[in-house]
Amino acid sequence: MKQLPVVVGVGYTKIASEHRDASLRDLMVDAVLACVTDSGLDNLDAVEHGLTSYESDHFNLQMTLGAILHDTIGMIPKPNARIEGGGATGALALRTAWAHIQSGLCDSILVYGCEKNGRGVSSRTANQLFALSADADWEMMIGGTYTSFYASMIRAHMEEYGTTEEQFAHVAVRNRHNAQFNDIAQKPMDITIDDVMTSRPVAEPYKLLDCSLLSDGAACILLSTDEWAKQHSKNYANRPKVLFSGTGCGTDTMRLGDRYPDITNFQAKQTAAQQAYSMANITDPVNQIDVAELYDSYSGVEIQAVEDLGFVDAGQGGVAVASGQFDLDGDLPVNTSGGLLGRGAPVGATGILQAIEITEQLWEQVDPRRQVAGARRGLTDTHAGIASMSVVNIFERQD
Amino acid sequence: MKQLPVVVGVGYTKIASEHRDASLRDLMVDAVLACVTDSGLDNLDAVEHGLTSYESDHFNLQMTLGAILHDTIGMIPKPNARIEGGGATGALALRTAWAHIQSGLCDSILVYGCEKNGRGVSSRTANQLFALSADADWEMMIGGTYTSFYASMIRAHMEEYGTTEEQFAHVAVRNRHNAQFNDIAQKPMDITIDDVMTSRPVAEPYKLLDCSLLSDGAACILLSTDEWAKQHSKNYANRPKVLFSGTGCGTDTMRLGDRYPDITNFQAKQTAAQQAYSMANITDPVNQIDVAELYDSYSGVEIQAVEDLGFVDAGQGGVAVASGQFDLDGDLPVNTSGGLLGRGAPVGATGILQAIEITEQLWEQVDPRRQVAGARRGLTDTHAGIASMSVVNIFERQD
Repeated sequence: MKQLPVVVGVGYTKIASEHRDASLRDLMVDAVLACVTDSGLDNLDAVEHGLTSYESDHFNLQMTLGAILHDTIGMIPKPNARIEGGGATGALALRTAWAHIQSGLCDSILVYGCEKNGRGVSSRTANQLFALSADADWEMMIGGTYTSFYASMIRAHMEEYGTTEEQFAHVAVRNRHNAQFNDIAQKPMDITIDDVMTSRPVAEPYKLLDCSLLSDGAACILLSTDEWAKQHSKNYANRPKVLFSGTGCGTDTMRLGDRYPDITNFQAKQTAAQQAYSMANITDPVNQIDVAELYDSYSGVEIQAVEDLGFVDAGQGGVAVASGQFDLDGDLPVNTSGGLLGRGAPVGATGILQAIEITEQLWEQVDPRRQVAGARRGLTDTHAGIASMSVVNIFERQD
Repeated sequence: MKQLPVVVGVGYTKIASEHRDASLRDLMVDAVLACVTDSGLDNLDAVEHGLTSYESDHFNLQMTLGAILHDTIGMIPKPNARIEGGGATGALALRTAWAHIQSGLCDSILVYGCEKNGRGVSSRTANQLFALSADADWEMMIGGTYTSFYASMIRAHMEEYGTTEEQFAHVAVRNRHNAQFNDIAQKPMDITIDDVMTSRPVAEPYKLLDCSLLSDGAACILLSTDEWAKQHSKNYANRPKVLFSGTGCGTDTMRLGDRYPDITNFQAKQTAAQQAYSMANITDPVNQIDVAELYDSYSGVEIQAVEDLGFVDAGQGGVAVASGQFDLDGDLPVNTSGGLLGRGAPVGATGILQAIEITEQLWEQVDPRRQVAGARRGLTDTHAGIASMSVVNIFERQD
């Protein structure tokens, strides 16, 4: 196998509930130009391939966005593909880019993700559109939406393990707290457990402040071989080398009912983590991983994730989260960016934003108030739907 | 680089204007089960990865179909990704599968494509939905649809090179003729040049019989390493080895107007072909390729394709096609399956059906009336939109 891909540079826009004056392509161009600059390139001439990540064809009424973006950013006639995998789509695009480089198909690949979910769509309509990522034949007709599925899962977790609403409120508080130290974050907030507990019910036990956001935004990462980066990037030698050292992907049933009675956790996430750990030679994740971005689409999902990723034993997530173990000053800080709850969730960009947060943590160049001192290895966790598909990626510093 | 991927087996449904009694997942299951049997496997236990190809989220009101299909065909918890690239989506999925195997991410990968375009959608609505693969911001608002864009391009070809309507009518006649020897074909027909010329105008110079079809159908290919196939397939040793030896991908502007005045041909296709030829060590395509499936979305597009693929010089496509050079008894038979005009065009399955036709030609197991004697190397050609993105794949027999 060839040497692992490296991160050459990153770029992103501010994440907002609506970028009213910017089209999807405007956002992408901003992220790509920022990535070109950060990568220490003068232009995109040497970059060989593109991969596009977006999810919501129905929000944006646009297919084949990859071709549009190549057109807009001046990458014609170079190859492009669009990868789609629900909420995991950005992480899946990075995984696919890993395969492109490792296969020899190219030595450099620009992975860009974007979404405009806020374009005047009500949260009711948004829920209906997101439900197209559930099983349209069997679940939509009975009114199944993700909020209700997630609520059922965390309710099962509460009954099985004694997890409490206050425990997952801790996630809602901490991630919005972390977002205060991230300039691009959509919802930086200093709130209390009580604020979460008294916010209005959405789908019990989830309340408004337990739920993540509809967001507009774009993000971009340039991956390459070590040789390509040395040859083309003016910045590469000036910061620690970050390798894309592991990737895993798992699937599970679409229908939650088909997993009954085992609906407390995400098996696809366990599968993805095991693959990624195996590839990156990780045997003791809680000690070998220094920082992680987890898919906190709802606050309780982070509790389920820390279990599925092997950071704590099954059922211990609630206690661990409430103990502060995953806070900025804890043993394994997670969602230092603010996560989906605080930074925001522009679907196609989310997995890429997570990888950017990890990379910038390993480069030690994030705001000092959220920097994890001496971080050498980080993880990103995303999934589609209620983890019918899940992707875990690992990045590590090598110097 | 590792040894090239091989085709282990193939499966497909009949292609029809509507499979009224079969859902999208029913069609996929039929194609996958046929592929399992053809691959000489008892089940999917040993297969490591899936890739899903479909295009029309809006026709089918379903996202993340990959997860649904893994669920339905029993491939949980194995990894899956969905690849989307307009009309090229099936070929793009095969290209991405190539990268998965060559990267070492897996040794075996099931690539399945499907579409239900016929589900009670009028051709007017279909044109509007397909237009979402054009530039929705700039082209849809002025009523731009693919038929009109393609008509403008072939009109430019006629003015530049003297190409005639009778010449592209030859394609419409020949491909429907070939479809008569393909059991799964949607529109096998014995028609005349005069039938095409007198069919009703759609977008001049294209008439009804110059246009390809709306189709329901599914197709599946199992790719693997040579070692995996030897270890797992009971059929592998019994037929010629077919290698997936080349893949290329190119992009072009979304807006036809941005290519003006050079709108006679498809530059993205030229780019894709050059990459694929380089990878497969092809220097003289017309002599080194024995059989090809070309993207005949409209009859004249085949004339443009034989030029862009280097089978004939620029401007010579019309004369060459009319001479019979690409007929079943010609030097380089193309669209032996019947092509999009005769076999049908279930979008997500189209590129996969093309690869299946080439593979079965190289295996020498198609109907003798369309078998190309001694075929050793074949090509597939697809594109998205008016070739804003294009993929060319090469398969060759090794024995």
